Amino acid sequence: MKIIGEKINGTRKRVAQAIEERDANFIQDLAKRQAEAGASWLDVNAGTHPNQEADDLIWLIENIQSVVDIPLSLDSANPAALRTAIKAVNKTPMINSISGEPQRLNGILPIVAEHGCQVIALAMDENKIPETSEKRFEIITKIIEATRAHGVPDSNVYFDPLAMTISTNTQSAMIALDILRRVKQEYPEAHLTIGLSNISFGLPARSFVNRYFLGFAIQAGLDSAILDPLDREIQAAILTTELLLGRDAHCLNFIRASRKGIFDKPVD
Amino acid sequence: MKIIGEKINGTRKRVAQAIEERDANFIQDLAKRQAEAGASWLDVNAGTHPNQEADDLIWLIENIQSVVDIPLSLDSANPAALRTAIKAVNKTPMINSISGEPQRLNGILPIVAEHGCQVIALAMDENKIPETSEKRFEIITKIIEATRAHGVPDSNVYFDPLAMTISTNTQSAMIALDILRRVKQEYPEAHLTIGLSNISFGLPARSFVNRYFLGFAIQAGLDSAILDPLDREIQAAILTTELLLGRDAHCLNFIRASRKGIFDKPVD
Repeated sequence: MKIIGEKINGTRKRVAQAIEERDANFIQDLAKRQAEAGASWLDVNAGTHPNQEADDLIWLIENIQSVVDIPLSLDSANPAALRTAIKAVNKTPMINSISGEPQRLNGILPIVAEHGCQVIALAMDENKIPETSEKRFEIITKIIEATRAHGVPDSNVYFDPLAMTISTNTQSAMIALDILRRVKQEYPEAHLTIGLSNISFGLPARSFVNRYFLGFAIQAGLDSAILDPLDREIQAAILTTELLLGRDAHCLNFIRASRKGIFDKPVD
Repeated sequence: MKIIGEKINGTRKRVAQAIEERDANFIQDLAKRQAEAGASWLDVNAGTHPNQEADDLIWLIENIQSVVDIPLSLDSANPAALRTAIKAVNKTPMINSISGEPQRLNGILPIVAEHGCQVIALAMDENKIPETSEKRFEIITKIIEATRAHGVPDSNVYFDPLAMTISTNTQSAMIALDILRRVKQEYPEAHLTIGLSNISFGLPARSFVNRYFLGFAIQAGLDSAILDPLDREIQAAILTTELLLGRDAHCLNFIRASRKGIFDKPVD
């Protein structure tokens, strides 16, 4: 299970402020802590100012890269901003994200293909997210036809089934798990990812819903997720799930994490 | 998910002492708290003194029944003690347990059949627990032939696949889950149960292993478990799993439990 660290996201108030004020220390601290906690990529989202997105992305990228050396996930739907920003990265980045929307496919896939990027592909179309797993899987099929047509290998595509909140549809988790299993079955070279926290939107005790959902998703084939790597309960969910699935030889990762205090109760 | 409350067990030191000293208050308190926490049965194990097991069981049963009215699970491999004790119960009890061992089947199944009891059946033979799910499933097949031959309906049989510790075989959880799924497939009328805590024996952070394993087991078809109903993290695992599996209409059980504080951090 690989983690895409979600914390450098300009749609969050505190991060937006740091971008606005060019507070490099704040961003670099988020970058270092996520990398130390085991993130494989750092998501970089410059927020909601389209006319300065490229500048903000470049400022973020340069400051992040001055303190960590893991690859980034450039989180933007704006091809022009991506084309500019990608020149500033040291390592081939992931692009977050495409969807079944033709404009987004045509705008972003050439960049993905040209630079050999990994790309997150959302199971949605023209900003609509179908209710059923059948309809979402149809979109996934359309997307993979497009990525293949652009010469992007399946192994560079990370499908996100989209976890809608259970509070409005009690079948939401089952639908997402079903899509994960189907993608793994039909496109075994493709990867699977998920934005975790939406599943519990509007519910109490959200962290319980997120962490058990993550366990079931890993069992269904999930191999990466966009989440907060500093959340010890989430780390514990990943370690415990991999232990139970028989993927932790001699229980070594689990035992080591225990010695590091991952399973201890937070002191706050 | 139904819970068989595990706490009144004479192989535990403190309970053995209470039985020895005829400390009815201690036992009744355990009975009341487990029933209030939602147990559907209370397991009653008189401990390790075979020549006084029947007397101890009757003393336990009478004291428990004076404070709670849920059925009991008589936890004994001793047919003579069971025949005597069963006369003292107010409600048809569960018997815990039979196995593929012929002596145990022949000694206990007539009691189960005569009284219309439910019975827990362990996937083991003559005190040996096979490593593979195939071999354990063969035992389950032998057991169901025996229960049917005695006229016990499949719906009264609760198969326990036996969760061995992951610390000595990293595939232990996968084997148990595989058996759960196979029993559900092959004998859909039969029930599934499990003694939860053994899966984590010898590991650190055992409660994490137990609770995520419980989640996966419920997904695999588990409909009851022998566990500590007073453990809030376990209750949280059950509630969260049933929510994620789409079995909690309007999320009502989850939201109610949240209001009751099930998901709050313990104050100790």
